[in-house]
Amino acid sequence: MTELPAHVDIREVAMRDGLQIEAPVPLSAKMKMLEAIVATGVKEVEATAFVSPSKVPALADAAELATELANFDGVEFCALVASPNGAKRAIAAGLHSIEYVVSAAAGHSRANVGRSTAEAVAQIPEITAIAHDSGATVEVIVATAWDCPFDGPTPQHRVLDVVKAACDNDVDRLAIADTIGTTTPRRVSDLVAAVRPLIGDIPLGAHFHNTRGAGLASAYAAVCSGITRLDASVGGLGGCPFAPGASGNIATEDLVYLLRDSGVHVDVDLQAAIEAAKVAQTAVGHGLPSALLRAGDRPSGE
Amino acid sequence: MTELPAHVDIREVAMRDGLQIEAPVPLSAKMKMLEAIVATGVKEVEATAFVSPSKVPALADAAELATELANFDGVEFCALVASPNGAKRAIAAGLHSIEYVVSAAAGHSRANVGRSTAEAVAQIPEITAIAHDSGATVEVIVATAWDCPFDGPTPQHRVLDVVKAACDNDVDRLAIADTIGTTTPRRVSDLVAAVRPLIGDIPLGAHFHNTRGAGLASAYAAVCSGITRLDASVGGLGGCPFAPGASGNIATEDLVYLLRDSGVHVDVDLQAAIEAAKVAQTAVGHGLPSALLRAGDRPSGE
Repeated sequence: MTELPAHVDIREVAMRDGLQIEAPVPLSAKMKMLEAIVATGVKEVEATAFVSPSKVPALADAAELATELANFDGVEFCALVASPNGAKRAIAAGLHSIEYVVSAAAGHSRANVGRSTAEAVAQIPEITAIAHDSGATVEVIVATAWDCPFDGPTPQHRVLDVVKAACDNDVDRLAIADTIGTTTPRRVSDLVAAVRPLIGDIPLGAHFHNTRGAGLASAYAAVCSGITRLDASVGGLGGCPFAPGASGNIATEDLVYLLRDSGVHVDVDLQAAIEAAKVAQTAVGHGLPSALLRAGDRPSGE
Repeated sequence: MTELPAHVDIREVAMRDGLQIEAPVPLSAKMKMLEAIVATGVKEVEATAFVSPSKVPALADAAELATELANFDGVEFCALVASPNGAKRAIAAGLHSIEYVVSAAAGHSRANVGRSTAEAVAQIPEITAIAHDSGATVEVIVATAWDCPFDGPTPQHRVLDVVKAACDNDVDRLAIADTIGTTTPRRVSDLVAAVRPLIGDIPLGAHFHNTRGAGLASAYAAVCSGITRLDASVGGLGGCPFAPGASGNIATEDLVYLLRDSGVHVDVDLQAAIEAAKVAQTAVGHGLPSALLRAGDRPSGE
């Protein structure tokens, strides 16, 4: 029997990864979502991204949203950046925790940020300096850690090279991301086993999408491999808006259900996550793929 | 690292568990579905059920459908029954493999077949005799093995009691079924570990629904626990027709994808399963919840 960790930290990513491909949602509706998310008890929230407003119009209000974050106590907010300039903007807006994404796959790196993986890696020192000089922390997220939409399977050495460079440059946290929702449990266990020996005591998180139905299975495999930080999105927000029903991020409430029934403690309340998913659904104006949102908790028989 | 089995047998259940709650599909459309299913390479197909036509009108054509089965070579067909009379009808219709369902939970047993679990268990010897006298095999499926819609969690001893009675009465195969789609990987591992010591070398299968998003994770946990027989349904057919998008059985193609990428061999071809899911979708006239049906295989980069 695999020994499971006693506790898993969930980072709520609906506000960024969930909303980024949606039609822009007014700030007032975003704040309702954020209030519902904070009410779940989650301790870390990815609030927005400081990236090109023309490329990601849904998050063009990043600085404005950031000014609202001081109103929430007891939650760590982070924001995604793709360049030193984005890091500066995030810090200037008051963020204390930034995520820098590096695509391990050449094709996705080029398409996503117009730079090679090596060029993106080369910016880690500058971004780390910008953050650390302000007392902020940096997480490097290795995107396309398993597969690339252009290149197919990502050679493992490309992932490990990014991981090593991040460790060499004093990043505070690492994550491996299944950007296009293709990985499966065995591939998760394999990559975690390869990454772990390289990173010392730097915390390692994982990020999964449910695009091919295996998101929760992959998340459980990650937890069985000792991962105790997982991203998830209320309602499973984050699917392609042009493919109705297509699954996005793994749904927070579905993950909470699975972990609870596995004896793993999380800070997120199941019913509150379902309520937040309903608020997210209203905000974006279409149905979300979460299973618990439809089916609810299992019958208690009481 | 968990040692995975080299091969898993998938039983295709779309024709029975998938169709049983749908509006009746004409026999001609069913035969198109069956042809597409057989074309996947699957070696075992649950073809229909010999139950009350008034309770399950969608399968009222069981005997008529059974006469068509002789046209398919190389596939083992089975049919579900809920009583000795059903077993006699199945055998008379030419089936060589029958499944007898016993609900481990009192509430579901009463609601489903109007008998207590003990009364249903008491029929195992007669059903086994009917089958064996005709050279047919019997599988006992323990329904509501984890949770009951009425009673909540099923006490494990109730499951084990049914398993023991089945073994004592020379059944040929056993399966544990997550009838309402509530179980999760850890609970699967726990129950398999409890059942295994009781059954000697009787093959044990498992049946999962994806109602709460954990179906594939549970299936993978079962495989990690040594289960090498899994039920699945093309398209994930088998959800409630009155809850659009609600997930039914785990989708064959999603399971094949996950197992293939875990290095586990199956007889079912992934693309052929996606094609069969499309045929099933046409037959029932509404969308199905399968992930692969929407997303397709992962990019090969070629």
